[in-house]
Amino acid sequence: MLRDNALEDKVIVVTGGGSGLGKAMTRYFLELGAKVAITSRDLDKLQTTATELEQETGGKCLAVACDVRHYEQVENMLQAVLKAFGKVDVLLNNAAGNFISPTERLSANAFDTIIDIVLKGSKNCTLAFGKHWIDTKQTNTNILNIVTTYAWTGSAYVVPSATAKAGVLAMTRSLAVEWAKYGIRTNAIAPGPFPTKGAWDRLLPGDLKDKFDLAKKVPLKRVGDHQELANLAAYLVSDFSAYVNGEVITIDGGEWLQGAGQFNLLEAIPKEMWDMLEAMIKQKGNK
Amino acid sequence: MLRDNALEDKVIVVTGGGSGLGKAMTRYFLELGAKVAITSRDLDKLQTTATELEQETGGKCLAVACDVRHYEQVENMLQAVLKAFGKVDVLLNNAAGNFISPTERLSANAFDTIIDIVLKGSKNCTLAFGKHWIDTKQTNTNILNIVTTYAWTGSAYVVPSATAKAGVLAMTRSLAVEWAKYGIRTNAIAPGPFPTKGAWDRLLPGDLKDKFDLAKKVPLKRVGDHQELANLAAYLVSDFSAYVNGEVITIDGGEWLQGAGQFNLLEAIPKEMWDMLEAMIKQKGNK
Amino acid sequence: MLRDNALEDKVIVVTGGGSGLGKAMTRYFLELGAKVAITSRDLDKLQTTATELEQETGGKCLAVACDVRHYEQVENMLQAVLKAFGKVDVLLNNAAGNFISPTERLSANAFDTIIDIVLKGSKNCTLAFGKHWIDTKQTNTNILNIVTTYAWTGSAYVVPSATAKAGVLAMTRSLAVEWAKYGIRTNAIAPGPFPTKGAWDRLLPGDLKDKFDLAKKVPLKRVGDHQELANLAAYLVSDFSAYVNGEVITIDGGEWLQGAGQFNLLEAIPKEMWDMLEAMIKQKGNK
Amino acid sequence: MLRDNALEDKVIVVTGGGSGLGKAMTRYFLELGAKVAITSRDLDKLQTTATELEQETGGKCLAVACDVRHYEQVENMLQAVLKAFGKVDVLLNNAAGNFISPTERLSANAFDTIIDIVLKGSKNCTLAFGKHWIDTKQTNTNILNIVTTYAWTGSAYVVPSATAKAGVLAMTRSLAVEWAKYGIRTNAIAPGPFPTKGAWDRLLPGDLKDKFDLAKKVPLKRVGDHQELANLAAYLVSDFSAYVNGEVITIDGGEWLQGAGQFNLLEAIPKEMWDMLEAMIKQKGNK
Repeated sequence: MLRDNALEDKVIVVTGGGSGLGKAMTRYFLELGAKVAITSRDLDKLQTTATELEQETGGKCLAVACDVRHYEQVENMLQAVLKAFGKVDVLLNNAAGNFISPTERLSANAFDTIIDIVLKGSKNCTLAFGKHWIDTKQTNTNILNIVTTYAWTGSAYVVPSATAKAGVLAMTRSLAVEWAKYGIRTNAIAPGPFPTKGAWDRLLPGDLKDKFDLAKKVPLKRVGDHQELANLAAYLVSDFSAYVNGEVITIDGGEWLQGAGQFNLLEAIPKEMWDMLEAMIKQKGNK
Repeated sequence: MLRDNALEDKVIVVTGGGSGLGKAMTRYFLELGAKVAITSRDLDKLQTTATELEQETGGKCLAVACDVRHYEQVENMLQAVLKAFGKVDVLLNNAAGNFISPTERLSANAFDTIIDIVLKGSKNCTLAFGKHWIDTKQTNTNILNIVTTYAWTGSAYVVPSATAKAGVLAMTRSLAVEWAKYGIRTNAIAPGPFPTKGAWDRLLPGDLKDKFDLAKKVPLKRVGDHQELANLAAYLVSDFSAYVNGEVITIDGGEWLQGAGQFNLLEAIPKEMWDMLEAMIKQKGNK
Repeated sequence: MLRDNALEDKVIVVTGGGSGLGKAMTRYFLELGAKVAITSRDLDKLQTTATELEQETGGKCLAVACDVRHYEQVENMLQAVLKAFGKVDVLLNNAAGNFISPTERLSANAFDTIIDIVLKGSKNCTLAFGKHWIDTKQTNTNILNIVTTYAWTGSAYVVPSATAKAGVLAMTRSLAVEWAKYGIRTNAIAPGPFPTKGAWDRLLPGDLKDKFDLAKKVPLKRVGDHQELANLAAYLVSDFSAYVNGEVITIDGGEWLQGAGQFNLLEAIPKEMWDMLEAMIKQKGNK
Repeated sequence: MLRDNALEDKVIVVTGGGSGLGKAMTRYFLELGAKVAITSRDLDKLQTTATELEQETGGKCLAVACDVRHYEQVENMLQAVLKAFGKVDVLLNNAAGNFISPTERLSANAFDTIIDIVLKGSKNCTLAFGKHWIDTKQTNTNILNIVTTYAWTGSAYVVPSATAKAGVLAMTRSLAVEWAKYGIRTNAIAPGPFPTKGAWDRLLPGDLKDKFDLAKKVPLKRVGDHQELANLAAYLVSDFSAYVNGEVITIDGGEWLQGAGQFNLLEAIPKEMWDMLEAMIKQKGNK
């Protein structure tokens, strides 16, 4: 989508960059000329991904092990990136965890685990990178957070994730105002259904994947393509979006709206019935 | 709900007050000691309702014919109310119209009709009453607008109503700020499914009423009771809510949220399956 | 506002109920006939408050020490309430903490403290009470969460609180859908400026309280009265609001809207200037 | 931003395309290879713009006179575009009007004028183009609506525009769901301060432009550049955003958030004061 080398000279850190959507975004950033560091707890997987993406794109991809729940690991990760690339321009908070479960079946500890990974993890990275940028007076930087559409509508059965992602959303809007004076922009993306093998294996094991066909819930009648998310992410981390700040952009084909709108269920009315209805309604009209 | 005489000395105008939800709110206002004027285009129906409600509650109810699309009729209605009751304290914009139809089947004129009734009608009443209150320096007044949950989520098949109600919602929020200095509060209610014979006869003729069981879309598994809406309306027009201003309160049992949240469809998973799922998920967990 | 004994037979737990807004809500619940348990970490203060409120209202108020950050303390608190009152009907998550500070000055630990009190604390109570209600098949219960207007707009200088309260807001909307089938309603209130001596002493020490006059930011030109919040809370925990579910009601006099609307700053234009402007605009009008 | 020829083969209609933001978007679409028809009531101005942009970009730009308030004029405009370019792929509803005024000074007619231009105008174009696409079974089309940030927050002093733009926003979300099955995507942009000489001359005559410095209200401390809006518009009308549907993207540098967040005013605290505050707060902390 973007011009060649649109991200040249940008150094980008993608947490949770070893697989799934994080990997797709990383690939596209590399194609556009950025240097990218990817992090997660699983260094082996990260290094495999980094090597694969370097070969595929000819770009520079660094694998750094980091459990974002621990602030000192985040600080070490930042130092490793600075050592390798000399600077960092963009933080993409993408690392996440989720439990699909009735909430009453969760232990308090299980719930905490998701808050720690998603909310405290994003906060740790944000705080470490922000302090670094402010201390070194580096400007023209930005933070991009990956949330979900249910960060603000809420959702049953993924309540720990909903609460944690909502926290990240509020952090996005808060720091967009507070840190703009330091030249730091902050935005978020709320993706709808972009299935990844890994994530959906975890979330909907077994036959359920077939039973709950995500495409049916989407007005466009299909799930998203990873490159479509990568397009939007590349726009938001680039200088082309320099006046977008504090915004959460939903990319879901209209999924949440289809559920939310009160009369959207009338989609089920077959076309031939509307002729009859139209006649009846015209008779009674607006009285 | 409210104490006896909670609305004593209040004069309230309810547009579209002759039937349905407008009638239910009017009844409760009368019970709480308010004087109420009800308006619509159909004077006969209005007078029947007024007489019925006076007998039922022992209160004072005035019927005034008014097509809210015409500003001069609104001004005349206001004068009639002032003549009868000496003043007016509350405007409740409840008059509405709706076409249920695929949008591409609507003529530009049909679409305009709904905008004229709902948006221009509410605007006409708001402007006439607001000018009156500002000119006469009457304070401690308020405007309550009845919108819908799809005023802000949008909805297919009722697009003229969605656009017009969204306009009313924005008017609510705008004037809550602008006119507060004149002692005018402005709020709105977004009701979910509160079926009324009249409205649903028009909206869902024939067998469709059975096919689309509104209660199923609501987490509470039932539609709303008219008194529940009346309770909320009475609170909002009373002095007990004096610090609520610019707010749109949804009363829908959670209907819109049930549709909006991405994983809410997992409600369909039978309880016995969760044990199995839990075991599988614990194995794979958060990697 | 509500009829006498409107909350008779209700048992309500108010976390952070020893002072400030929690105390004000507790007082009103007691006046309306409820039995109330108040909790916080400071048992002495709680007991003083409980005694004071019992004498004032003639109601039953129980003080229970509890640090909501620790799930086992929450479970013990629930048992203490059940032992004293035999049941519990309503959980009001009001306990909170806040740091006012530029975010880059916060340590990761300080940030975590607020997440732990506000988000994990509300979650711990919600989980313990929800499991209890579901296990014992008690229905007609509800949870009311106190959030803030910046739970969804975000706010600079209180970012830990903003993220944590946003999490609570998402939990509200999620469980309103998920737990409705168990007869549990879930709602929230987002209060604007309701200053309490304790809170504002902490948040705005010294002369700053005078410098930043909160009333100026509010269209109604005043801060809220604690009883106004108590009125709304009593409505929401009562059966009169039985069809309100998943809703977050803002009570702020229009404060957030005044800041948000793009042209609201034109309030500063003196009245005499509008005549001139009107003439000029009419000339150029809508071309 | 986008690759050369990213919009090749697209035919785009921009209402209100003769000046201001409409002209800026048109220029960029032409640069990217699209054919563009611009419309407004002032044919002379349109033709001057069309000629200028054709010379500047080497693209094809058609001027078509059209008052969007009149449906038959819109239908004629559509026919003129089809005759000239053979098809149309994108409708960009950008034509607008605005009165800056205390609402109580407006006549009912003046208010209606803005509703007619903005809401009925956008509806007329949407209806005519949508019917055409549905009738001819043309897919892969889209509608982009230009709204404002106050379409949903509301705003004092521009209430007719706020109500009308809110209606357009709801139409965006409604049709994104309803018309997706016909291959029509629908999105909107909510721009913040992108001053144009024409518009601001009308809105803020005389010295007021200096007094109300828009840049101060924006966290990024500057107004937007027209090309920044054009970048976002080009992304949204292009196939690169094919999974974005029903979305309203705000591009305002964070302006509305800066106003909305409750503690954002603390920006006024000088840095040296925070040290003192920090010490005081640490003492009293979270009790």
